[in-house]
Amino acid sequence: MSLSSALLENAVDQLASLPGIGRRTAMRLALDLLRREPQEVARFSEAIRRMRDELRYCEVCCNISDEPRCAICRDPARDAGLICVVEDIRDVIAIEGTRQYRGLYHVLGGVISPMEGLGPDDLNTQELMDRVLRGGVREVVLALGGTLEGDTTGFYLNRRLTEAGVLVTAIARGISVGSGLDQADEVTLGRSIADRKPYEQTIRR
Amino acid sequence: MSLSSALLENAVDQLASLPGIGRRTAMRLALDLLRREPQEVARFSEAIRRMRDELRYCEVCCNISDEPRCAICRDPARDAGLICVVEDIRDVIAIEGTRQYRGLYHVLGGVISPMEGLGPDDLNTQELMDRVLRGGVREVVLALGGTLEGDTTGFYLNRRLTEAGVLVTAIARGISVGSGLDQADEVTLGRSIADRKPYEQTIRR
Repeated sequence: MSLSSALLENAVDQLASLPGIGRRTAMRLALDLLRREPQEVARFSEAIRRMRDELRYCEVCCNISDEPRCAICRDPARDAGLICVVEDIRDVIAIEGTRQYRGLYHVLGGVISPMEGLGPDDLNTQELMDRVLRGGVREVVLALGGTLEGDTTGFYLNRRLTEAGVLVTAIARGISVGSGLDQADEVTLGRSIADRKPYEQTIRR
Repeated sequence: MSLSSALLENAVDQLASLPGIGRRTAMRLALDLLRREPQEVARFSEAIRRMRDELRYCEVCCNISDEPRCAICRDPARDAGLICVVEDIRDVIAIEGTRQYRGLYHVLGGVISPMEGLGPDDLNTQELMDRVLRGGVREVVLALGGTLEGDTTGFYLNRRLTEAGVLVTAIARGISVGSGLDQADEVTLGRSIADRKPYEQTIRR
C-alpha cells in the first residue's frame, strides 16, 4: 500500500505498531486524526509522550503512580502483611472493583514469557523479594492469569517466596458465578472438581 | 475507573477518543507504549503530530500529498477528462489496486452527514466544481459508499455537476464477483436485477 505521503505512511506505521491494530485500522485512525484541529492532535501526541517520559512507579509496589508512593500503599487502613501479586495495573483496577481485598499489591509489570524474551529479571520480582525479606509480610497471594506464562511465573515466584519463609497462596480457579458448567472449558471444570470444598463454604454471601 | 495517575488517565482518554477504541483497549495500548523505550514513544508521538501539522493536500484533487500536486495528477499518461469522486484516500488506494482506472480523482474528505454536522461546505465540493468549470472534464464518476450518507452526497453532487453540463456516472452496484446470491442483501440484489445488462457485456474478461 503506497500512500503518496511519507508523513502519512510514517504515522500509519507507528499506529499499526500498537497491539491488535492492523494497517487498515491504523489508516482509519490516521484519517480521523487528520480531520481534527492541529491543537487537538498536539494534545493527543503530547499526552502519550508525557505519559512515557514522566510517569513514575510506586517505590513500594511498582504500581503506576504520580507520587513516590501510590494511594493504596499510603492508606493506613490497609493490611500491610498481605500482598497480592498481579501482572499489571489493569488487574489492580479489577480487584479493587470487587471491594473484597484490603491488603496491598505488587505489580510485576508482565509475566515470564520465553517467547517474548521476558525473564524474571525483566519483571519487578526482585522488588517483591526485597519487600518480603524486609519482614512484616504474612502472606503473598498470586493473582496471575490462567495462561502458560501466568503458570510459569507463579511456579517461579512460589519457589522463591517459599524459600523466603512466607505463606504463598493463589486465587481460586473454578466455574464463574452465574455461569453453567457447559460454558466452562475442560481444564477449569476439572480443576473445579479437584478443588471442591465443603458445601457450606461455597454458599454465596 | 480511577487510574491512580493523571498522566496515564490523560493518555488513556486521548487513545479512547479514536474511533472504535474503547477505554479497555485504550488501556492496553497505553500499557504497551509504557513498556517501550522513551525514544521509541517519542518517535510515535512525533509521527502523529508531524502528520497533522505538515501534511499537505494536492492542489488539484485534494488527495494527500507531500508535494503541491500528487503523483497521480502529475502523471501525463492519465486521462485528465475523467474524474472519479471518492470519500477519502483509502478509496483511491482501493481503486488504484484494481489497475482498471486511468483517469484522475477528486477526494471529498468525507461525505455529507447531517448527524455529524458535515455539510457540502465541509467537504472539497467547491474545489470539484471549480475543476469542472475550468473545462476539459468530460465525465465525473461518483464512487461513493452505498450508505445513506454516500447516497445523499451523490444526489447533491449529481445535481450541481449536471447543472455545470458535465456527464455524471456512478459505479455499478451489484452482486460481488465470486459470491452467491444468498450472501447479498435484498437492496443490492434488487438493484442488480434492475440494472441488468446484455449477457455478453457481463462475461468476466
